[in-house]
Parts: sequence; C-alpha cells; structure tokens
Amino acid sequence: MSPKITTELLKHLRQVMKNPGYVQEPVQAYIVPSGDAHQSEYIAPCDCRRAFISGFDGSAGTAIVTEQHAAMWTDGRYFLQAAHQMDSNWTLMKMGLKDTPTQEDWLVSVLPEGSKVGVDPFIIPADQWKRMSKALRSAGHDLVPVKENLIDTIWTDCPQRPCKPLITLDLSYTGVSWRDKIVALRSKMAERKVMWFVVTALDEVAWLFNLRGSDVEYNPVFFAYAVIGMNTIRLFIDGDRMMDPAVREHLQLDSTLEPEFKIQVLPYGSILSELQAVGAGLSPKEKVWLSDKASYALTEAIPKAYRYLTPYTPICIAKAVKNAAETEGMRRAHIKDAVALCELFNWLEKEVPKGAVTEIVAADKAEEFRSQQKDFVELSFATISSTGPNGAIIHYKPVPETNRTLSVNEIYLLDSGAQYKDGTTDVTRTMHFGTPSAYEKECFTYVLKGHIAVSAAIFPNGTKGHLLDSFARSALWDCGLDYLHGTGHGVGSFLNVHEGPCGISYKTFADEPLEAGMIVSDEPGYYEDGSFGIRIENVVLVIPAETKYNFKNRGSLTFEPLTLVPIQTKMIDVNLLTEKERNWVNEYHQKCRDVVGAELERQGRHEALRWLLRETEPLAPVQ
Amino acid sequence: MSPKITTELLKHLRQVMKNPGYVQEPVQAYIVPSGDAHQSEYIAPCDCRRAFISGFDGSAGTAIVTEQHAAMWTDGRYFLQAAHQMDSNWTLMKMGLKDTPTQEDWLVSVLPEGSKVGVDPFIIPADQWKRMSKALRSAGHDLVPVKENLIDTIWTDCPQRPCKPLITLDLSYTGVSWRDKIVALRSKMAERKVMWFVVTALDEVAWLFNLRGSDVEYNPVFFAYAVIGMNTIRLFIDGDRMMDPAVREHLQLDSTLEPEFKIQVLPYGSILSELQAVGAGLSPKEKVWLSDKASYALTEAIPKAYRYLTPYTPICIAKAVKNAAETEGMRRAHIKDAVALCELFNWLEKEVPKGAVTEIVAADKAEEFRSQQKDFVELSFATISSTGPNGAIIHYKPVPETNRTLSVNEIYLLDSGAQYKDGTTDVTRTMHFGTPSAYEKECFTYVLKGHIAVSAAIFPNGTKGHLLDSFARSALWDCGLDYLHGTGHGVGSFLNVHEGPCGISYKTFADEPLEAGMIVSDEPGYYEDGSFGIRIENVVLVIPAETKYNFKNRGSLTFEPLTLVPIQTKMIDVNLLTEKERNWVNEYHQKCRDVVGAELERQGRHEALRWLLRETEPLAPVQ
Repeated sequence: MSPKITTELLKHLRQVMKNPGYVQEPVQAYIVPSGDAHQSEYIAPCDCRRAFISGFDGSAGTAIVTEQHAAMWTDGRYFLQAAHQMDSNWTLMKMGLKDTPTQEDWLVSVLPEGSKVGVDPFIIPADQWKRMSKALRSAGHDLVPVKENLIDTIWTDCPQRPCKPLITLDLSYTGVSWRDKIVALRSKMAERKVMWFVVTALDEVAWLFNLRGSDVEYNPVFFAYAVIGMNTIRLFIDGDRMMDPAVREHLQLDSTLEPEFKIQVLPYGSILSELQAVGAGLSPKEKVWLSDKASYALTEAIPKAYRYLTPYTPICIAKAVKNAAETEGMRRAHIKDAVALCELFNWLEKEVPKGAVTEIVAADKAEEFRSQQKDFVELSFATISSTGPNGAIIHYKPVPETNRTLSVNEIYLLDSGAQYKDGTTDVTRTMHFGTPSAYEKECFTYVLKGHIAVSAAIFPNGTKGHLLDSFARSALWDCGLDYLHGTGHGVGSFLNVHEGPCGISYKTFADEPLEAGMIVSDEPGYYEDGSFGIRIENVVLVIPAETKYNFKNRGSLTFEPLTLVPIQTKMIDVNLLTEKERNWVNEYHQKCRDVVGAELERQGRHEALRWLLRETEPLAPVQ
Repeated sequence: MSPKITTELLKHLRQVMKNPGYVQEPVQAYIVPSGDAHQSEYIAPCDCRRAFISGFDGSAGTAIVTEQHAAMWTDGRYFLQAAHQMDSNWTLMKMGLKDTPTQEDWLVSVLPEGSKVGVDPFIIPADQWKRMSKALRSAGHDLVPVKENLIDTIWTDCPQRPCKPLITLDLSYTGVSWRDKIVALRSKMAERKVMWFVVTALDEVAWLFNLRGSDVEYNPVFFAYAVIGMNTIRLFIDGDRMMDPAVREHLQLDSTLEPEFKIQVLPYGSILSELQAVGAGLSPKEKVWLSDKASYALTEAIPKAYRYLTPYTPICIAKAVKNAAETEGMRRAHIKDAVALCELFNWLEKEVPKGAVTEIVAADKAEEFRSQQKDFVELSFATISSTGPNGAIIHYKPVPETNRTLSVNEIYLLDSGAQYKDGTTDVTRTMHFGTPSAYEKECFTYVLKGHIAVSAAIFPNGTKGHLLDSFARSALWDCGLDYLHGTGHGVGSFLNVHEGPCGISYKTFADEPLEAGMIVSDEPGYYEDGSFGIRIENVVLVIPAETKYNFKNRGSLTFEPLTLVPIQTKMIDVNLLTEKERNWVNEYHQKCRDVVGAELERQGRHEALRWLLRETEPLAPVQ
C-alpha cells in the first residue's frame, strides 16, 4: 500500500475554504466526518469524502484540515492502515491513547483567535454538532455550517449517488403491511403527543415501506427520507424508481386511498425545504420527532421548542422486534446459509491440504455457495477470511497484499454472511484443517464456554443486553484471557447486519432492554497477535424461557440459535466443558443434523450432508 | 404510626415564601430536598428539614410546596411509609411508576405563568440545579436561590448543628500522614492544571486530615469544608474542637511548618465568602476543582470559566484504594466483628426457642457484643434485624410497631455493622433456628451461588464493578428469580459504610474501575413479599489474582473476603452446588475457624468458639 499524495488536494481545499463562492466567510478549519447524510455505518462511494481527501479508507475516522495542518482521528483498529494510506501532509491522531487530544482540544490549540470551523450540516449529527460547537464557543471560536460540501467542490471525478431499482416485499416476508406500520407509528406519535416524525436512517425508511434497495453495498437500502404526519406521508426519493409499476402498486400510488395513507413522492433533495416549511407552520405544542443522531441541518429545520429528540426512534425499536413472518424468514435464511457453509467447509477440507486455497479464494467460494441458494441477494458485509496471524486482526479483510494461503498448520477464521430476500445472516466459525495444538484447543474451548454461557443464559424480561456481556468472558477471565470487542449486535431482517437498539457489550449502557423477537449475534473470541484468532458467532433469537419460578410475574427470556452450522469438535477440549455445556453442544449439533441435514438432503447435496453428519457426532463424555 | 399534622406548618411556610424579610421576591414554590450542604447520605437531625415539614422521615425524598399544593417524591422502598407518615395536605409522588410526573413536569403543570421556584442553594447539588433550572426556564419559570433556608425560619425547635469532639488517627491506622495526602492531592491537581481543590464531602475532609468525628450518626465525620491551594490549606470548622491539644498537635497548628503545610482554621460558615474571594482573585487559566455534586452555592462562587468539575474527586478515588495499614485495620475490625457475631448467633440459638427474643432485642444484643470489642466506636448503620415477612422489606429497621419475635419457624435476616477505630464492617447473615423448608434452602442456595460467583470471580484489571453484577444473579435467573437491589457498594475504612466511586450494580455505569486495595460488599439476596428475606453479605477486598495466562499484560483481580462469619450450612442444599462452590464454602469456613477461632480462643470465648467449630463443619460431598 502506498499512501495517497494529497498535497494538491489539500491546497485546493484550502482555497475553497476561503472562496466566497462556497463559504459565506472564510473558514480556518474544515471538518470531514466519515458518515453520510443518514448517519449510515456503510456508505456509498460518493459519500467516501474523508477517504478521498486523505487516502485513509477505514470505516471510522474524522479528518480536520486547517490552513496549516491536516489531522485524522481514528481508533485502534485502524492505526496501522491509516499510517500506511496517508502521506506526510497528515498527522494521525490515535484515539484512545492517553496523549491524543480530542478534536476540540486540538482545534483550540492550533486555531488563531476567533476562528470559524466549517462542517457540512447534513453530515454531522446534531448531538456531535452540539458538543463540538459548545467546546469551540467556550474557546472563542465558532462552528459554522457550510451549505455546499467543500470536498464535493474539489472532487472532480466524484461518483454519482446510486439510484438503483427497488425491491418490494410482500406480507409473506414482512408480516405487516406498510399501512399497518404507519398506523402503529402514528399511535406511538400520539402517545408522545408529537405531530410529525422524520425518518432519516436509511434502514428505517426501507423497513417502514417494506421496500429494499441496493444503493449501498451490503445494506439493502436506498437513499430516501420520509416525513410522517398524522394525516400525511411524504417520501423523498430520486430517480425513476417510482415509475416501476411494481413499486407503484406496492405503495398504492395510483389507488384511491384514504388521504392519510396517500404517499406524496418528493425529490430527495427537497427534504430540507419541506421540513423547514413544516417547522414554520407548527402551532404551539405541535412537536416533531427526530432521532438525536439526525443531521444538524434537518434538526435545525425544526425550531428548538418544537423538537422531540430520542436516541432510538419508534421505528428503530419496532424494527428490532421481529414478527412471526420475519422470524420464519430469518430461520429459512439461516438454513440456506448453513447449507452453503457445509458445502464450503467440506470443500475446504479437501482443498486446503493441496495448498492452493488462499483467503480470497475461500471467501469467493463462500460467496459462490451462498449465491446458489434461493432468494440470495448479496453479502451482508465484507467477508473476513483469515488464517494464522491474520485471524488476530479483528476487522481483517483479505486483499492481495495480505492474502495468505490456508494450510493444515494454522487456524482459519471465517466471519461471513449474506442478504437473502427472507433474512440476513452473520456467522463465524473457526476451523483447523490439520491437528490443533493443545493450547489452541484450550483457547477455543474457553471461547465456546463463553458462547454457550450467553446462548443458554436465562434472564428476566426487561434485561438490557449489556448485562450479559460478562457471561461471555468469564471462562476466559478465569485464565487471564479476554477479547477487546463487544459480544453481540442487533441483526436486521433482510436489512443492515448491524442495527440498534439492542446488543451485548460492556461498552454501552443505553441499549434498549431485550425482548422476545429481537435478534442479536453472540460472538465472543480470543485473539493472539501474530499467531491466531478464534471467534464463534451465532445469530440468536430472543425467546421466552420456561422457568421453575416467576418472580414478580416478570417472565424470563433466553436465546434460540438461528445459525445452524457445526462448531468444529476437533477444536474442543471436552475435559474443560461442564456436563451442561457438553449437552448444549450435542443438542445444538443434533438440531444442525435435523434441520440443515434435511435441507441438504432436499437439495441433493450428499457429500456436504456426509460432512455435516461427521462434524456433528456427539462429544465424548467428560472424563 | 399516625401522620404528622402539617396544616399550620405549611401555612407558615407559605407565609415566609412571600415574606420580603426572607425572599427577595415571593416564590410560588419551594423545594425541600433530603440532603445537607455536603450531599451526605446520612444527615444530622438539624438537617432533617424534609422530615420536619412533611412528617416523612425515610432516607430519600424531595418535598415541593406551592401556594396550593404540597407534594413528596420518593421511591418504591418508601411508598408505604410515606403514605403513613404524611397527612392529607400531601400528595405522594411515587417515583418509578409510569404515570408519576417528574418534579419539573409537575411544577410546570401547577404553577402560574412566570413563577419563581425557590431552593436553598447550599442543599441542592449543582448538577440537579442545572437540570431543574433548564426545565423550568424552558417553561417560562425561574429557579431562584433563597439564601435563608425557609424551613429553618419556621422550625422553632430545630436542634443545634452537632459539634462533637474529634478523634485523631495516627499512622498505624491511616498508613499515610495528612501531609503526604496533601502532597499527593497537589500532584493530582498539578496533573490536571488546577490551582485549588474544594473539599465538600464530609468523609473526604475526615480522610484528608486523618480526623474523625461523630456529628452524624453512624458516619464518623464532622461538619467541615476544606480548600486546598498549591501553597495553602484552609479548614472551615466550628466550635472549640480546635482547642483540643491532641487535635492541635495532630494538625501541627502550633508548630513552625513550611508555609504550604500551615493549616489556616476558619469558621464553618465562612466557606462561601472565602471561596468567593478565591473566585474573584483567579488569574486566567487558574482552575478550581469541585465535585459536580457540590452545592450550587459553592459551585457558583467560582466563575464558570474557572470551574473544573468531575463526578469523582481525587480524594474520593484515593480514599477508595486502601493502603496496607488500612487493609490490616479492616482485617482486624472484621475479626472482632466476627467474634461478636459468633457470640450473638450462639446466644440466639439458645434464646430464640424460648420465645422472648424480638427483632429489637436481637439488634441490641448484637450491639452489646460488638461494643465489647476493642476500639469499638458505634454502629455503622441502623441494624436491619428482621424475621419472617419483615425480612422481605429490604431497608427494614425494627420499631416497636413492627417488632416481631424470632422463632424456630421463620428465617431471620441480620444486616449489621460497626465502626471500629481500625475499620468499618457490614455483614448480613440469614439464619434458621429450626428446620428450614426445602424451598427456603433452595432459594438460600441460589443466593449463595451468586455470592460465590462474585467473590470467586477473576476479572481483568480495569474492569468496572457493574460488569460483575450479573454473576450474582445468574443462579437466581436460571430459576426465574431475582432481587431488586444492587449487589455491592464501596466501604470506607473507619468511615462511611457506603462510599464511591466503585460498587457492583446493574444501575450504574459511571463507576470507577476496580483496583487492588478497593473494598466493596458482595450482597445478593432473594425476597418473597409477605414470607421471608434472604441476603448473604461479605465485605471483600480487591486483590491481584494469579492466572494461567496474562492477556496484554493487564493482570487480573479477584476478591478476598474480609468478613469471616459462618454461612449457615443448615440452609444450604448441597446438591445444588458445584464442586467448585462446595470447595469455596469449605475453604471459607476453614478460614473462619483458623482466624476467628484463634481470636475467640484468645478472648476466652469458649462457648462461641464451640458454636463456630460446629457451624464450620465441612459440607458433605455433592451427591
């Protein structure tokens, strides 16, 4: 990897920072955040402005350019990558290290008195704006919104914003019609006494209208906003996508509808002016509901006294609780996904010893097997296919420069998933195609114990996921080991593979309580720098648990694994398992046999079926 | 309990709320919080203003009186008690229930436009002021500081502020001299670039100067403030306590000292004017460090730009990590405390069957045995002595109206502790003096499993206590049970029995990481309304743990029980324990025998020794 040469680009950017054609007043610093106007985790190429200006294309990072300096803040996952990708114009600010200044402190230390700091108000979330603006103001500077994105003005070959065709999902996939979702949303709005709700997150728009898109890689979403009133529905979306008869039919655009279900289609770019009009027309006590992570631009469109901001929107919360149709879809998707992985692992077992399977080949093969399954759409994230020391890089993605060949001497970690029309998958298995060492087995078994501790946990209704995080670590902690990431994230239903408002992590406290129907991942791991990585990940469904007693009638919950892919028994040191843990593995494998075995049989995949049966032999009794 | 008649008092209060002799402008509402000027958990009688005006004397509650209304906010522990103690002038606001308005919302709903809401600025913490002031302002009202406390103006027989003699602690108790503590504090101040530190919490003043008092029941503290500069020490304290030669000697008031260690003694009441003078004399960049829970009055004395506020002060954090002298003192205190409890339980075992031991008698007997021990000072909190259904009331304290007789048919729960000059204790044991039912044993055993899960937990350095909370609940959760309180709190060293900044609770997130030398309680429980309560509480010391591996060289921690009182084996269903748990109980009891047995022997308490030996017989092997 050679760094991107940015000298000319920075010169150009510094010119437009002073050009009255673009800025009302010259700005002495310009902030380039990672995100798009919807605060998406995955962004389209046209939104990769920070990567364009700096060369650094990791998933997280904020660039700030002043007249003299250019600095990049990113976290520990990306220190090495950022250092490789950026030229000497850039200073790397290593977040999380003690001596690294915050963006605000750094700005205050380098800016001349009374400076203006510019940022695109559509890209910066309102809560971040507030924090940064306050810090700058208290030091005599000003954070100012720059309407035109200054990167876009110098990015001559900027790709177009994608505008791909939409997919309509019928009731068999969604369980609830978009009309009923609107009714439910309006009832939540009435409860909170708000008159308007602004849908800014792309997956929330997609979920609400039972539509999917492919504007962003891995996330089946499309660029759009929506504004829902008590009697109106406005959808802001571009292109000829609304000309598609299937979409028109789905949204009933040409039907005679009660006015409150009539969807008004408006240009994507008109959201701000429309919202400003809404804001201007509000009567006292008419509130507008927005996510507190919505962009500063949209938030400001509503006068402060009329804003109702919450960390999680009612759509985010409703979307997290899957209904019967969605749950069944997720089950189907996971069975198909398991079929593909049984094929893959069977193939790897034969091919790895021959020495020609690289990480990239294995990842491609996984995609090939998945794409053979019904309703396959695309991958749900970039496949982490990593062997030996690469496995210790938690967010690894093989590229030609790092591409390692799988062998019978190293542990192989595959974290992958797909979007099917009926559901989203995300599964990690750690395999050895030779003979693992006693130490590798020991570490694997601790991770497995943690995985089981979460998966088999029983906990009261209303428990937040972060309270389960330590269960995943306890066996590792007992031996002085640990892993430096959370244990689980919410998973969408043919939607984003990472979604809120629930999860299992020591890092959050504001997650919403788990409830039956929510779907999260359970993925503890152990990583030894320079040697190997281990992770065991299932997607699990929150279900009611039967318990002997029922304190205060609260009811209890537990998890049901949706992922049904064998956990390599060769890697397990059975003597480290309790009886209960051994039974868990055996019952899990029996279910893999029953459910995935039947599907392999149905699909006539006999060799993979034989592999499955062999890999799911019951564990020997604990000695 | 008959309610306090408050009609005349309220009438009087409403008069002074409009009396220009007391308020600059009439206030339409007056807030009476629970606390004192130091935000203490336990308060002196002269500070029980909320109890005086309302009759409700629980530990938590806020009263608000308007021209028309009087309302009391308290939490679930006190709904019943508050309802009993208050007359019909008062509306009980049940916090935590869905339909209960917040204080701010309620005020906004009842106040006439443009109202003034008064509060004593010395009693309200700055962070609460900020929140309430903002909410009121956004509704067109004003929160205003009322200098003179309006309750005090109508409380004709208000008790005097206590001003009891001080106890000086030498190095054998404290391990570090007050001079060295000042040096360490100044180095923390230099690190953060602050010039002044204001000590507002009573236990922090006591700890810093190695002094103790008895101004507040159960807490060995005295009314004082301190302001530490880089070259000055000011102690604000009243009475002739500074005339005591031992105190003068201890503080070296009459010695020739380097000026930076010369303590300037000032009247308690002069803190505000002195702090205002400090505030007025600050040069740019000279910051003043305060707790963000310090009173609004003191916080406001420092201009906003000069304030450095943190949730935990450097003294709070230093105080939590006990040094070798303190740890040894805590060990000694716990051995003495165990001797007293062995005597008590031996006595109860003989006396309970005779039918004349009430909860109050048992509590008094516990105090009697404790008071026989060396360096006993007082109890560390009001003894919770509860039998049968009273045990299910988590914060129960026996009073004549509720006083129940212990019997061989009910579970007895004793949560008690003492202040010794060398340490503070807090221990809960749950006993049955007859034959417990299988169900009682089952519940007890789940609680014990939770207690052991925390006590034996191994976790990385830097782990926050709240991450251990679920370990205490897991066995209960498995059967659908739980308890509605946290698992542990920090414990002072001959100081407050509850102290920050660490603890073990699902409710906090902002606790400081556990480190070796910190001392917390481990006290899971189970409570069945109307039937019984179970709690098993040890005070435990955080110690380094030896582990097989050492991930990232972080090191690991675990707990060592300081409390050494037998856990009644009669209550244990051994078949529900794992081998590891059974061994834990046996090893714990062996330590009780070794350590407390030797002390009982030394003190010639042979009958109690026999009781101890019997109660610490090893558990039968798991079947």
